Amino acid sequence: MRRDRLILATTLMVVFTADLYFVLLPKLQDFRQGRGPRGASPGPWLSNGTGYYPQEGGGGAEGDPEDGGGSKLGRLFAHPLYNIQSPTLGPEERLLEAEQLIDYYKKKVSRWERHMKLYNEAAAASNITVIKHEVTFDPEVSWLKYHLGINRYSLYSRDDPAVGQLLHDMQALTIISADYTQDEKALKGVCDCEQVVKPSGHHLKLALKMKDFGKAMFKPMRQQRDEVTSEDVFYFVDFQRHNAEIAAFHLDRILDFRRVPPVVGRLVNITKEVLYATHNQDLRSVFFTSPANNTCFFAKCLYACKTEYAVCGQPDMLEGSLSTYLPGLSLAPRVSVPSPWIRSYTFNGRKDWEVNPFYCDTIKQMYPYNSGSRLLNIIDMSIFDFLMGNMDRHHYELFTKFGDDGFLLHFDNARGFGRPSEDVMSILAPLSQCCMIKRSTLLRLRLLSRARYRLSDVMRESLAGDALRPVLTEPHLLALDRRLQRVLDAVDSCVRELGEEQVVTTDFARSTEPPWAATEAGKGAER
Amino acid sequence: MRRDRLILATTLMVVFTADLYFVLLPKLQDFRQGRGPRGASPGPWLSNGTGYYPQEGGGGAEGDPEDGGGSKLGRLFAHPLYNIQSPTLGPEERLLEAEQLIDYYKKKVSRWERHMKLYNEAAAASNITVIKHEVTFDPEVSWLKYHLGINRYSLYSRDDPAVGQLLHDMQALTIISADYTQDEKALKGVCDCEQVVKPSGHHLKLALKMKDFGKAMFKPMRQQRDEVTSEDVFYFVDFQRHNAEIAAFHLDRILDFRRVPPVVGRLVNITKEVLYATHNQDLRSVFFTSPANNTCFFAKCLYACKTEYAVCGQPDMLEGSLSTYLPGLSLAPRVSVPSPWIRSYTFNGRKDWEVNPFYCDTIKQMYPYNSGSRLLNIIDMSIFDFLMGNMDRHHYELFTKFGDDGFLLHFDNARGFGRPSEDVMSILAPLSQCCMIKRSTLLRLRLLSRARYRLSDVMRESLAGDALRPVLTEPHLLALDRRLQRVLDAVDSCVRELGEEQVVTTDFARSTEPPWAATEAGKGAER
Repeated sequence: MRRDRLILATTLMVVFTADLYFVLLPKLQDFRQGRGPRGASPGPWLSNGTGYYPQEGGGGAEGDPEDGGGSKLGRLFAHPLYNIQSPTLGPEERLLEAEQLIDYYKKKVSRWERHMKLYNEAAAASNITVIKHEVTFDPEVSWLKYHLGINRYSLYSRDDPAVGQLLHDMQALTIISADYTQDEKALKGVCDCEQVVKPSGHHLKLALKMKDFGKAMFKPMRQQRDEVTSEDVFYFVDFQRHNAEIAAFHLDRILDFRRVPPVVGRLVNITKEVLYATHNQDLRSVFFTSPANNTCFFAKCLYACKTEYAVCGQPDMLEGSLSTYLPGLSLAPRVSVPSPWIRSYTFNGRKDWEVNPFYCDTIKQMYPYNSGSRLLNIIDMSIFDFLMGNMDRHHYELFTKFGDDGFLLHFDNARGFGRPSEDVMSILAPLSQCCMIKRSTLLRLRLLSRARYRLSDVMRESLAGDALRPVLTEPHLLALDRRLQRVLDAVDSCVRELGEEQVVTTDFARSTEPPWAATEAGKGAER
Repeated sequence: MRRDRLILATTLMVVFTADLYFVLLPKLQDFRQGRGPRGASPGPWLSNGTGYYPQEGGGGAEGDPEDGGGSKLGRLFAHPLYNIQSPTLGPEERLLEAEQLIDYYKKKVSRWERHMKLYNEAAAASNITVIKHEVTFDPEVSWLKYHLGINRYSLYSRDDPAVGQLLHDMQALTIISADYTQDEKALKGVCDCEQVVKPSGHHLKLALKMKDFGKAMFKPMRQQRDEVTSEDVFYFVDFQRHNAEIAAFHLDRILDFRRVPPVVGRLVNITKEVLYATHNQDLRSVFFTSPANNTCFFAKCLYACKTEYAVCGQPDMLEGSLSTYLPGLSLAPRVSVPSPWIRSYTFNGRKDWEVNPFYCDTIKQMYPYNSGSRLLNIIDMSIFDFLMGNMDRHHYELFTKFGDDGFLLHFDNARGFGRPSEDVMSILAPLSQCCMIKRSTLLRLRLLSRARYRLSDVMRESLAGDALRPVLTEPHLLALDRRLQRVLDAVDSCVRELGEEQVVTTDFARSTEPPWAATEAGKGAER
């Protein structure tokens, strides 16, 4: 705990300096230019009257000195707020031990080789064509490095080269096997139709194994980019959107949470890379050729009829998201906790938090929300979900190893980015009811609301790197800016009521550079 | 049979005269104008080089002397081919006896009154609000007259005023009761998911009872007019389209088959006219309010999850088709016969007719297709289905009373009008494989291919009378003309191969006027 105090002191200094340069100074500038203080106007505080949204092309430098030119994403990641160093990691602060993981991986490889030998013999006997793949153990593969990098602060470090390599590998490597996920296997084709939560036909996700033994969850495209689910559909039966999974990873990284496992888009050949790659007869049996001669597969759900809820390739190629798997539960156990702001998942039901304005007071008294950063982590997650419009965060998970104050995993984001015109304010209930936010989060949100780092622009730039670009339509990107402003308004309203002291909680962070260097870099970024 | 011979002789004369005036004379005119004979060119034979499709607004008289002005539908129905009188009906040629039907109706009314008395008492005890409706016996109601008009030639006569009144009544009368149809009740909420034929969530049709005791089947809107089902969807799991039901009735009447029970479109208040009108607790239990505050109901299907396949009002108003009920099976038994050209209803299955080019030779040997008009009736139906693009005619029904030569009922047409750009030639297999067609059908098809009576124009005009206009989008209307031409091409190709004698079968028909008057009327129509 003593080390923590030291870090806290350093952090306070960094945060104060950053605050001074990026919050107080601009406010003073605003005053000088007669724009009035932030908070008095609900509009974006640095728009300089030139219109809120970027010019065509995203540069938008003209008439907006704050906007600047060049890569906004590069500028964002170069900003001191994004260069606050995590403390040096002790062995207990890493999720996995290298030897243990490598052992595990070696065993998997030899088991695979044994299985494949038997399978190939059996397949030859039954005249099933199997594509053979040589698999070798390689300690340099990106997924292994990514797994080894997971620590008590986040799923990956900002500058970890393994993440970029992993994204590339998931997009490019040969798929050597496809199967149902454990969830689907547990269902055994029977839909739980007593509950409205798990609708039939949505179980189309698959586990894919790459040539380097990396595993990814594949969610196929169900909806066109510009399609908007009818407003009559309850959020819990909405389509799962592959592009939302991809966009959520980029958003989480831009918010500097780094709590979403890396996701890429990929055009998958479902005949060669799924049908011919699977060793599961059940999965093979759900493939068929559509009247338009496309290869399709449907969800295995005993009582739901089949082809109507199928997905189809063109004729074999199908877009999907690939989310990298976390280390197996035997290596890195996780707990799943119902969100205190869970929704009712019924037609008319209302949860306590929807009707009780003092709900957060109760939560604040309850373990594990009564101490540490768990509640602040929930609020981070609610901001992330609000920005995407994801109403489906019924549970959250965290690694057992890091205890109650471990970061929350932000995965399963496919129900985000549904309706760009709608801001579902109730998603923000944890923030608006508890009136608390981490200072580090708030500072980044404020930064992203400025034209120089505008959230929609950095998201557009970040997503342009994905193979399935454009991942989000413009209305979805612009919705991010509008919603970000609503988050900041919610914080302002709390601050007006309770004071900044009460609302903005100073949290953990340490710069890679001494504070004065950070401020110098900050000034540089201001130019 | 002697009477039949007399009619046949008269018919032959009428048909010959009509043929002379409307087929041979125009051909001669074509020759005079150097356009060449019909059949040599695959295009429309009277387009006069001014373009095939009507001018904007549908008039299109300019540059097309054949087109003419005014109501094409009126002109069509005034044409002698549409004024061939059915023989005077003997009692055995009517489907129902008036006394029997009236007795049945009276019993129904008194049973309804008894039930309502009990129900209202029970409802009052359980505090359920019930809207009370006075129901009285009235021998003048339109549905009763319509039922009494059904005869061995068709479901209604061309000039029966009861049909217009019935269409009006179905559209306007108070709905006093709503319930599941017998089909849905037989399912008892269990979907037959072994078969792919009956997909979950499509069972949303309801039986509605009007204040005058008329009954109609309600099919709610599932698809927007301009929505096109994905080409990857098998026809047997396609949506049922309410507008296809409406359009099919109009098309069948324009083709002068009169084998579709009258259908109208209606904007139904599903709260007041279904939820509050039903006495079925099961039906009441599937209603819910959507997140957008609209009233919705879902298909009761035990193993299919719920709201995703619901239909919703705006907030209560929902479009639907109302198809009038046929007389009950106890009064007028019907048989249901699998179509010889039934499809396989599986992913890969192929039926004999799809692979065997001599399939019709087998069918022609088989009872009941080896004599009488049954096969010609099947061919009529296939032309009707081809024009709509309906691939889902697995069974057909006919009234037992009229024996093997009775007309085929053309109902359940909701899977028509799916993809306007596609002509599913296999629907026409009965015609193209058997190379037979009734002369009366062929003459009408030829008439409808002419600019003066163009099918798309008369359909547009006819559908404009429906409350849910526009019932079909322009691409669907224009597809009718293109498909009609393909039917005529198929006939031409048969005639070239086998000769007109062999292909065009002279059938039953008698004019209301003596032949010379008919030709005079024909000349008038030509002017």
